[in-house]
Parts: sequence; structure tokens; C-alpha cells
Amino acid sequence: MQLHTLVLNCSLKKSDETSHTQALIDESLKIFKDNDVTYDIVRLADYNIGYGITDNTGEGDDWPEIYEKVKAADILIIGTPLWLGEKSSIAAHAIERLYGASDHTNEKGQAIYYNKVGGVVITGNEDGAKNAARSILYALSHIGFTIPPNVDTYWVGEAGPGPSYMEAGRENDFTQNNVKTMTHNLMYMARILKENPIPVEGNVLA
Amino acid sequence: MQLHTLVLNCSLKKSDETSHTQALIDESLKIFKDNDVTYDIVRLADYNIGYGITDNTGEGDDWPEIYEKVKAADILIIGTPLWLGEKSSIAAHAIERLYGASDHTNEKGQAIYYNKVGGVVITGNEDGAKNAARSILYALSHIGFTIPPNVDTYWVGEAGPGPSYMEAGRENDFTQNNVKTMTHNLMYMARILKENPIPVEGNVLA
Amino acid sequence: MQLHTLVLNCSLKKSDETSHTQALIDESLKIFKDNDVTYDIVRLADYNIGYGITDNTGEGDDWPEIYEKVKAADILIIGTPLWLGEKSSIAAHAIERLYGASDHTNEKGQAIYYNKVGGVVITGNEDGAKNAARSILYALSHIGFTIPPNVDTYWVGEAGPGPSYMEAGRENDFTQNNVKTMTHNLMYMARILKENPIPVEGNVLA
Amino acid sequence: MQLHTLVLNCSLKKSDETSHTQALIDESLKIFKDNDVTYDIVRLADYNIGYGITDNTGEGDDWPEIYEKVKAADILIIGTPLWLGEKSSIAAHAIERLYGASDHTNEKGQAIYYNKVGGVVITGNEDGAKNAARSILYALSHIGFTIPPNVDTYWVGEAGPGPSYMEAGRENDFTQNNVKTMTHNLMYMARILKENPIPVEGNVLA
Repeated sequence: MQLHTLVLNCSLKKSDETSHTQALIDESLKIFKDNDVTYDIVRLADYNIGYGITDNTGEGDDWPEIYEKVKAADILIIGTPLWLGEKSSIAAHAIERLYGASDHTNEKGQAIYYNKVGGVVITGNEDGAKNAARSILYALSHIGFTIPPNVDTYWVGEAGPGPSYMEAGRENDFTQNNVKTMTHNLMYMARILKENPIPVEGNVLA
Repeated sequence: MQLHTLVLNCSLKKSDETSHTQALIDESLKIFKDNDVTYDIVRLADYNIGYGITDNTGEGDDWPEIYEKVKAADILIIGTPLWLGEKSSIAAHAIERLYGASDHTNEKGQAIYYNKVGGVVITGNEDGAKNAARSILYALSHIGFTIPPNVDTYWVGEAGPGPSYMEAGRENDFTQNNVKTMTHNLMYMARILKENPIPVEGNVLA
Repeated sequence: MQLHTLVLNCSLKKSDETSHTQALIDESLKIFKDNDVTYDIVRLADYNIGYGITDNTGEGDDWPEIYEKVKAADILIIGTPLWLGEKSSIAAHAIERLYGASDHTNEKGQAIYYNKVGGVVITGNEDGAKNAARSILYALSHIGFTIPPNVDTYWVGEAGPGPSYMEAGRENDFTQNNVKTMTHNLMYMARILKENPIPVEGNVLA
Repeated sequence: MQLHTLVLNCSLKKSDETSHTQALIDESLKIFKDNDVTYDIVRLADYNIGYGITDNTGEGDDWPEIYEKVKAADILIIGTPLWLGEKSSIAAHAIERLYGASDHTNEKGQAIYYNKVGGVVITGNEDGAKNAARSILYALSHIGFTIPPNVDTYWVGEAGPGPSYMEAGRENDFTQNNVKTMTHNLMYMARILKENPIPVEGNVLA
């Protein structure tokens, strides 16, 4: 069975700049590749994304093409840096736009995100990873994604200003183990949900 | 296939007092019963639970018997009231104790909570439900539970002091629909995880 | 003593559309006016604000003119709607940009935001106000603002989709009392901090 | 002017065990001592504290004597360890009990906590400090405390299991600077609020 992953990298930097979050995401992508899972990466800072709780804010809004990629994916990974202990404003923006289609349905009348799974990859020079994971994973779950166990991969350093993931985190066993656990659990759960889609029972949108 | 649910009601009141959270939980239990899912309810305020990140704090600690119930369950529902927009201190306590066994493993060496699913039921007279759901569902996911879509059932009233669930929430369509969605999604995901347990790959504890 | 307030309205809508959050902010502004406190309102959705943790992202970035207004203010109020129980992405963006000047100092070498006070005004059709207040007030406090008591004014309705503040919240006594408490406490604390600025002791930036 | 500080240490361990959080609190207490500010430390795990949103749950409840200490203090510091990226359940419990007297008033009819200031001291082996600070400082502010700038002192280590504050954090410049900033700002703001108590205007409880 072919699985496909979409990564939304919510770095504040455009793709002409190095993203520490992308470096950690890349660890997960290697495993997807080894398991013949295809993937697509969207660096949201490169796009012009409109504001509002809708799937399309009109002319000039790049979200509709990103939304097509979301619909095509079995697995969605949201990557974000940390600022003041929270996910980036671009991650907040992405979630608003995902939420903007939460009334769209699949052919059974369930939320469009049913039978998809979600995970997060987070980097920061200190503190805030669990808070950002909490926020993103809950939002995904609330709009229809399934959250497998241990799909919060992160690296943060010691309290205070300090080095970032690429300088100081690549050797962190805890983080490197989390990447493996997350990626395998995402693949497995996506596969069994594709084989056994959630039946219509109490979950059709009005 | 027989499924079993454990409800941890984290009301600050002992079971000789009425719990609004229990009243909303009961809506879910009716559906479990109709689907031949057995259940057990623990009102944590009735027990003497020790402090510490361990499965057993020693003499006088009632957690070990509750932990046996957690292990026996396929589905775990945490119920909590809201105070200052957060889950109760008893819910925080329960999560610490669940976390205290996060290094326990099943026969495959995975976290003991693998292949179990979790959900939340929350009531408050105003505001805070999503914050409490975010906290509890993330904690469960981080220690090994799978979180199906839409397993955050809640009722809250308008801003400010006001009536509670049993007085004002029973007719709320949104909440009543959530109960159905949550309960069915919990049952379905518990069933497919029981039939298709998560394989050992990247997720064995050291 | 002349006091000045800046309101950053973080609605996702531009100022040609009605903002429920603005309607609640207006209740506070009436009190400021009655007390001869001047004010300025910035609807952030009208501006082109760059991304990055800096006070100036370069050509086309409108933040520098907003930052001048922040520096000129004694009182800063952040207004935000709620989406999925969190502050808007525009509020997250504003906080990132405020944080981008957290290494700027006043003439004493303290953080530039010292001796200013902050508050929040939040509206949503349901749930999330305390979570958004918690996030915004903490961020302000962490970068140098003082937080007087009871400066979280909000209105939210009952769980589920429903009417917004202008339709259903204007008569809410709790919210209307909060507006008064917040506005008076902001004015008082701004005044005593202006008369008694925080002395240099342990709080000069390196 | 004599100032007095109360520290509520919300460690899960009783005072016969070493608390890393206490070790960081002690850094603050040295500064209070050097400035002739008296202090009292309560290790909450040593007490039997009842459950419920009230100042007194009846026979056997030790909170009333702690509440007397809260009332006698100008400065309240809540100390907490981190578990799963959140404050301890004992910290949650303390906040519920503080909240239980939020309708008590001073002689002017304002919330009993008016003219007091609050801060937090947090330690953990990794991640969660800002989340815990956000929760505690907001709760204090919501019930009447004033929050001076930079009163969130914390130490956390790199992602994953690892050493605690006493082993690895004592040399952290960021944390040691925060202790100084926090302690001086708490003392200053407590002093000016004692000299200039918040006047009755819009803030008398009904």
C-alpha cells in the first residue's frame, strides 16, 4: 500500500535560509524514504497565505494549493520552531487554515481529515516543545486526525540563549529515538486506517 | 471482541456528592453499554493516592489497584471539571501517576499503554475545556495511548459564574453529538488496535 | 499626568469588516476617554508585517511604525478573537515582533518595555479565553511589562457554534465588570509606574 | 518598610527529601535576606490539604493555616517541579485553594490578594518551564495579584532524561540572572503597592 506524507514546515524563515526544524524533519524523511513512503515538503514562509477561517480567502491566497496537498496526504507532519515557548505564528496560521476546512467532508460525510494521522517536529534553543506539541496535536485531533502514540519529536537545549538543533542536538539520543518511534507509528497507523477506515457511526457532520 | 473501558472521574468531590462531569460521562457510558462494552468508573477523590512519579508510593497508596484497572482497560476516559480554566488538581495527579509507569512495558517491550486509546470528558460553568483537553490528550499520547479523532467531549457555559452541566448543558446539541462521536471513535479505534497491535519497530523502550 | 494607551487588535479581519473584539475593546476605550487617557488603535490585519524575531525585517515591513507606537504607550492592550481555543495567528505574530525588540533597552539599560503595563481583551463564540489570556499576559510579562490584577477581559458563549459578542455578549455583567476593573487597574498601575519607575537593580540587560 | 515573602514549594517530595526547586528558591531567599525582607517557606507535601474551591474544607484541612500565611505576605512565590511539561499536581492544588478565597475581600471590598505580588520558581530536567509559569502567573493575576516583569525564574536541561538543577543548573548564567531580576522586581513592586495601594475604582467585588 502506497502512503504519502505532507510536511508543513512553519519556520519563520523562507527556504533560502537554513531551518533547524527542517534538519530534524529530514531525519524522519530518511525513514519514510527507506519504507517507500513518498513525501512533499511545504515551507509555508515561501507562500502568501490569506487570513480567515476558510479554505480559500480569494485572489492571491496560496492556501488552496496547499490544501490540495493536505487532502492527498495520509500523514501530516507540522514542523515548528519555538518562540517564547510557543509554536510559531506561521504554525498558528496553518492551523487556522486547516480548521477553515473542518466542515468539508469525505464521501461518507465525515470530516475530511478522517483516516489521516498527524505528528509534530519541534526545535528550539530552549523550552516550550511540549507546549507546542500539545497545541498542534490537539488541534489536529479536534478536526479529525488520529494521533498515534509518541508522535511528538523535539529538541530543545538548556534554559537560556544557546545553540540550536544543528549545532547541539544531532547527537541527542532521546530526540533521535523519538524520530524513529514517531515515524514508524505514523506509518503503521496510517496503514491500518487506510485498510480499516473509520465507519460512519456518530461522526457524520451535520 | 470484548472491549473494556475505564473512566477516571477527577472531580474534586467524593462519590457521595453529585458530579456534573459524571452526568456527562454517563451519556457516553450508555453508548458503551448498548455496544456491549463493559466499563468501570473510579472516582479518584474517594481514594488515597500517593505523590511521586512512580506506580507505587508504598504503604497506604491506593494507586496500585487503580493501575491494575488501567492495565485491564482498552479505553481510558479521563473526566474532569474546570477550575480557573484548567483541569482539576486530581486530574493532574492522575496523569503524574500514569506517567509513573511510563517505563513499564508490554510483552513486546513497548510502553504499557500501547494499543490503548484515550479520550476526555470535561464540564465547567465557563471556559477552559479545550485547554484541559489539550493537556490531558497530549499527556496520554506522550506516554503511549492512541488518540482517535474528536475524543474531547465537553460542556461549558457563557463567560462568568453560571449554571453547571446538569442544570444547563443537557440539551446542548454540540455536546451531545460530541459524546456520540467520541464514544464510537474510541470503540472503533480500540477494536482495530486490538486486532492489529502496533508492531515492534522503533518503539521499544530502552 | 498624561497616559497613553495602544490597542493592537489582532482580529483576522481588516478594518473594513466588523470586529467583535473591537466592540468589547470599545467599552474599555470609553473609560479611558472619560479619564483623559489618549489612545491609538492598530488593526494589525491592515498592515504588512514581516516574519522574524527582530524589530525590523527590512523593506516593506510595517512593524517599525507600529513599534514606535508601542514605545510611545504607557498601556498596551492586545485584543484577539479565539480559534480552536487559542489566540489568533495575528496575535502570535504580534508577540513575536514585540519579542524581537526584547533586547532593546531604555536609558537605564532595562528592557524597553519596563514601566509599561499590559492587558488583554478576548472574544469568541465559545471557550479558550483563559488560555489566550494566559499566553498573551505571560509573554508580555516575560519581556518586561507589568501585569496589574484582573486585566483579562473576555466574552465567550456556551460550548459549540453560536452567536458572537455583539449579538450575545453585550449584556453579560461579568464581562462588563471586567472591562471596568481592567481599565481602572491598567490606568492606576501605569500611573504609579510612571511616577515610580522600576530602579536599576538586577534588571539591566547584558 | 518591612516586607514579607511566602514561598509555597509544590515539590511532590516532603521536606525530608531534597528538592531541586528549593535549591533554586534558596538563591532568591538570599537576596531577600540581604534586603531585610523576611520569609516563610511552606513545603506543601508535608501538609494534609483538602479538596474543593473553598478556603476551608473542614476538619483535618491544613489549608486554613497556610491561608493565614498567604494573607500575611506581601510577596508570594510558587515553586514547582515539572512533570510532562506541566506544573506539579500540588501546584495545581495550591492554586485551587488560593482560588477558593478569591471572593474574600480586604477592608475596601477588593479581592483579598490585591496589593500583593507574585512570582514563580521552576525546575525540571527538561522542557515545560514557560508553560508552568504561564499557568501559575495567570492564575495569580486573575485572582488579584500583580505580576511584575520577569518574575519567572527557571532552570531546565536539554531534551530528554538528564541531570536536575542541583547537578547541572547552578552555573547557568541565564537562570542566576533571572533570580536577581525576579527578586528585585518583586521587592520593588511590593513596596510601591504597599505605599500606593490600588484605589477602589471598578474593582470592588459584588
